[in-house]
Amino acid sequence: MNFLAEIKIMPLKELLDPQGKAVMGGLSNLGLKNIEDVRIGKHIQLSIEADNAVEAKQIAEEASKKLLANQVMEEYTIQIT
Amino acid sequence: MNFLAEIKIMPLKELLDPQGKAVMGGLSNLGLKNIEDVRIGKHIQLSIEADNAVEAKQIAEEASKKLLANQVMEEYTIQIT
Repeated sequence: MNFLAEIKIMPLKELLDPQGKAVMGGLSNLGLKNIEDVRIGKHIQLSIEADNAVEAKQIAEEASKKLLANQVMEEYTIQIT
Repeated sequence: MNFLAEIKIMPLKELLDPQGKAVMGGLSNLGLKNIEDVRIGKHIQLSIEADNAVEAKQIAEEASKKLLANQVMEEYTIQIT
């Protein structure tokens, strides 16, 4: 069966996010003053061939740990559909 | 009130995603052979000060259209929490 894994990778809360700060400045310059914080991460969709959702999640976990997320600076959450 | 807008920005389905293809090659080299497709986009969290969720969503929409997403190449979905 084919599963879609949606992986959200965000910078850790404890760390500064300079890209987010820059975008917040840009939004403020465009007149959007009500935005108080911006954090920017990655969203990765994997199309996984697996027997069941548990196996698909394991593959997505392995991919996240080995390549997709840098766990020193980022946290990831996986959702299988 | 403070709302969190989660904005998912992905390359349009009709377009190639060279970054995703490169990552798929990397995953295959690492021995993860069951992954058939990879698409990479952005995930942006906005912290928005607004009276209600509808207003927060409007602000997030405006931010997405004006700055965050390039609608020629990307599609976005907004979730307010």
